[in-house]
Amino acid sequence: MYLDTQHIAGLAKDYRTTLVNSIAGFKSANLVGTVSSTGNTNLCIVNSVFHLGAHPPLLGMIFRPHSVPRDTLENILATGVYTINHVHSGIYRAAHQTSARYPRETSEFAASGLREAWLEGFAAPFVAASTIRLAMTYRDHQTLAVNNTVLVAGEITGIHCPDEIVGDDGYVNLEQAGSLAVIGLDSYHSTRRLDRLAYAKPGREPASIL
Amino acid sequence: MYLDTQHIAGLAKDYRTTLVNSIAGFKSANLVGTVSSTGNTNLCIVNSVFHLGAHPPLLGMIFRPHSVPRDTLENILATGVYTINHVHSGIYRAAHQTSARYPRETSEFAASGLREAWLEGFAAPFVAASTIRLAMTYRDHQTLAVNNTVLVAGEITGIHCPDEIVGDDGYVNLEQAGSLAVIGLDSYHSTRRLDRLAYAKPGREPASIL
Repeated sequence: MYLDTQHIAGLAKDYRTTLVNSIAGFKSANLVGTVSSTGNTNLCIVNSVFHLGAHPPLLGMIFRPHSVPRDTLENILATGVYTINHVHSGIYRAAHQTSARYPRETSEFAASGLREAWLEGFAAPFVAASTIRLAMTYRDHQTLAVNNTVLVAGEITGIHCPDEIVGDDGYVNLEQAGSLAVIGLDSYHSTRRLDRLAYAKPGREPASIL
Repeated sequence: MYLDTQHIAGLAKDYRTTLVNSIAGFKSANLVGTVSSTGNTNLCIVNSVFHLGAHPPLLGMIFRPHSVPRDTLENILATGVYTINHVHSGIYRAAHQTSARYPRETSEFAASGLREAWLEGFAAPFVAASTIRLAMTYRDHQTLAVNNTVLVAGEITGIHCPDEIVGDDGYVNLEQAGSLAVIGLDSYHSTRRLDRLAYAKPGREPASIL
């Protein structure tokens, strides 16, 4: 099919949302844990985490326009901390359930059955069942003029991860961790590594470094 | 393992880069095609494409600080157009090769063996061998104060995609397209769908909609 701007604009809203969300490619499936200044914990599944830099280690995350209550974003801004917890095959159903619209006073930890873990004195809750867990410290946010979404930038200030899945060069074997890739908002995928390739140089065929 | 900020800061640079890039989770593998104002085409593999919104359909992309020549970014700003082409299992080696540092006058299309396609009169080159191809029109860019990376926001103004991989609800079956997920900068993965779940509602178990 070929769809131009007029075609795309003419699509039914739900169809367009699903099409645009899925055609963007695979994303990471993460659970973001926060706590309000009054102590209510919150957990939500997020597929918008992306790499911003390694020195310092920064991740970005996109929130929809701040025109309706956004517990997670408000908690991050109020407390300055949050956690990112990988979704694996054993918890994806519970993780998905955190996207339901619960009343504000309900913790999605309790509602989804995912247990909280408080690690190393960090002031935001982790997901006990996750294999890879990141302690995140808020660094900056800005509203994007293009569509009023909000970009939150945070620094990885703690990494919890099993020793045996981290290689000698720092490569984290996400397949051993069971981490999933996601299409759109609802499609969960396990992966199989095809190859890992060496740093590319002109005039040389890419070499496998498996 | 548990690494705190001091541990992370003390890691060797290459180790930290690999660790931080891979622990962020799966990303999409895309080739971004551009052309300079003088007609030189450029192609580079990018793993930083993310969803910004569906109405209008917007994707974001992160570029490293604009302190060294960045052909792709400069071409986008000069011409206002670019293409996003999914990487599949048949072309991932050639796609990876585009990350080599070629002289500015060398087109990575020619260097990697990936053929250009010019579609629907669009003023930026697509990858002939890609199954899913997006025509992108530049909308905005901003430098992120947190680490001077540059976020480019573009609108999907054209979608080229085989009919048979798009479902009745707009869901694009990326596995049928052979699209790959990537860890870090060098690890390529095929996927297998575990499940697709219905819109979550409080007090109801997540239902499969496979």
